[in-house]
Amino acid sequence: MGEFELIRQYFQPLAAKARTGQLVLGPGDDCAIQRVPPGRDLVFSVDTLVEGVHFPLDYSSSHLGWRALAVATSDLAAMGAEPVCFTLALTLPAADPLWLSGFAEGLARASEAFDIALAGGDTTRGPLTISLQVHGTVATDRAIRRSGARPGDLICVSGPLGSAGAALDYLEDPEPDSVRQAVLRRYHFPEPRLALGQLLAGKASAAIDISDGLLADLQHILDASAVGADLDAGTIPMMPELQQLQGGQALSLALTAGDDYELCVAIAPDVLAELAPEARAALTVIGRIRKAPGVHLAGANLAEVRPGFDHFGRVV
Amino acid sequence: MGEFELIRQYFQPLAAKARTGQLVLGPGDDCAIQRVPPGRDLVFSVDTLVEGVHFPLDYSSSHLGWRALAVATSDLAAMGAEPVCFTLALTLPAADPLWLSGFAEGLARASEAFDIALAGGDTTRGPLTISLQVHGTVATDRAIRRSGARPGDLICVSGPLGSAGAALDYLEDPEPDSVRQAVLRRYHFPEPRLALGQLLAGKASAAIDISDGLLADLQHILDASAVGADLDAGTIPMMPELQQLQGGQALSLALTAGDDYELCVAIAPDVLAELAPEARAALTVIGRIRKAPGVHLAGANLAEVRPGFDHFGRVV
Repeated sequence: MGEFELIRQYFQPLAAKARTGQLVLGPGDDCAIQRVPPGRDLVFSVDTLVEGVHFPLDYSSSHLGWRALAVATSDLAAMGAEPVCFTLALTLPAADPLWLSGFAEGLARASEAFDIALAGGDTTRGPLTISLQVHGTVATDRAIRRSGARPGDLICVSGPLGSAGAALDYLEDPEPDSVRQAVLRRYHFPEPRLALGQLLAGKASAAIDISDGLLADLQHILDASAVGADLDAGTIPMMPELQQLQGGQALSLALTAGDDYELCVAIAPDVLAELAPEARAALTVIGRIRKAPGVHLAGANLAEVRPGFDHFGRVV
Repeated sequence: MGEFELIRQYFQPLAAKARTGQLVLGPGDDCAIQRVPPGRDLVFSVDTLVEGVHFPLDYSSSHLGWRALAVATSDLAAMGAEPVCFTLALTLPAADPLWLSGFAEGLARASEAFDIALAGGDTTRGPLTISLQVHGTVATDRAIRRSGARPGDLICVSGPLGSAGAALDYLEDPEPDSVRQAVLRRYHFPEPRLALGQLLAGKASAAIDISDGLLADLQHILDASAVGADLDAGTIPMMPELQQLQGGQALSLALTAGDDYELCVAIAPDVLAELAPEARAALTVIGRIRKAPGVHLAGANLAEVRPGFDHFGRVV
């Protein structure tokens, strides 16, 4: 049995998790086959994680397994889609059983938590690189795009921001205290807002998941919708632990640090008022879409916040 | 404008090529959206190419653009599917405009030739790695799997084998003569057998594209179908140029070298006889599926052919 067969054995259990009949054919043939139910569209997104760029050298492979699938699946949440399956393109320097079993274990937990089955993949030798493509479905014409924000829409986020960004400072801490552990969990185990996204499908005007920082990602909505935003700094949700650890820097992190994978949503006030109670409870209003381009932030000095995240050139 | 925006500009034209209405939303949002027509299934496959493993260092980026998309799309041909769109996960050490424009140009030619549009992707910094996922559709339950070969089926291939493998010896030749050029073309510009695959959908018992060598890939069909094969070495199609260049080694290359991306098909004799004339003309019968496992090769000594290709550990 070659290295390849061994690797497949680690991932085979993830393919068995397809609870729906939508994954007609999983790994092992030239292609996988997915049956999209009538009245629904396929939505899909690919995310690549490179060692030393998107996660630290020697990062726990089990954490990485969870994180990689969570990060990718978060794009389905932002579209309001229901997860179905994913592919894994894994480039590895060597077939290290310890690393592989940890990675497969983290991936399996995430696969179960998000109800998304492994459909196929490719394993190659090279520098550690993980590309995950996630597939979901959404009712025809109900996917939430970035381009639908309209003046008067409320801007909401789905949870506290900045913690995962703060966690980067504590990744090397061998024995983090409970306060640091709280923000570290936000980095290691992001939870895509799938249930919320599905409740927002066909209702929110626009949505994006916050991977690169609130200001950077909100700007993608503003650009795509040709609008601007008024934000109120005092309403940006943050974990108490973040404020305890970072003091005056907490707001800056909440505005510009990535990796939280909460949703940023634009939604008309009357539509928000009629959402299911659990969706309303999950959203915090932080501002309003306006006609004039640009972002005005009440209660803080935008010039003092750190610049937005850019994948290309980022060093963990 | 950041490096990322520049990179997107190179690839934007490829997204405009979607002739069908099936790609509802292309690059630029959290996800792309594909509408699968009623009565059809989505088929998809991901392939990763790593520099120094799947293509040589300093390989022409224009050739690479074509090759990467051809290699991935070949999996759609093997399933009998019609191409729709693809995603590109591109990891690059630097945003070199010369490299990028060549790569985008080769990719664009392939995209047009195979009628497959760019749907989305991810660009990251790191060692040169290309993951392409291709999407196609096929009529429900008509996809050709590896597992359907039955004793008595004829084994056919769609074109000459071994040339691309031989070409590896001449990649460094600065001025290859016309004979070498003929085999080099087979390596640089593989052409997925899309039209043939579509004619075989719902008719062939089993199919695979030959990426790793005839014997290795046929074995995947035999394993999945729990059958064996009798092959006739004298019927394996080869280019005259291959025989001219490699003499007695030509057959060994035809049996074991990869990268040709022809189809290997198992099909019942009466079904073959009733195929469209262009499909019959494209296929060469090289053997027959038998009940007993294993492969018997008449007219050559199997022990003398080179071992099959294994991605993991291959050095170009």
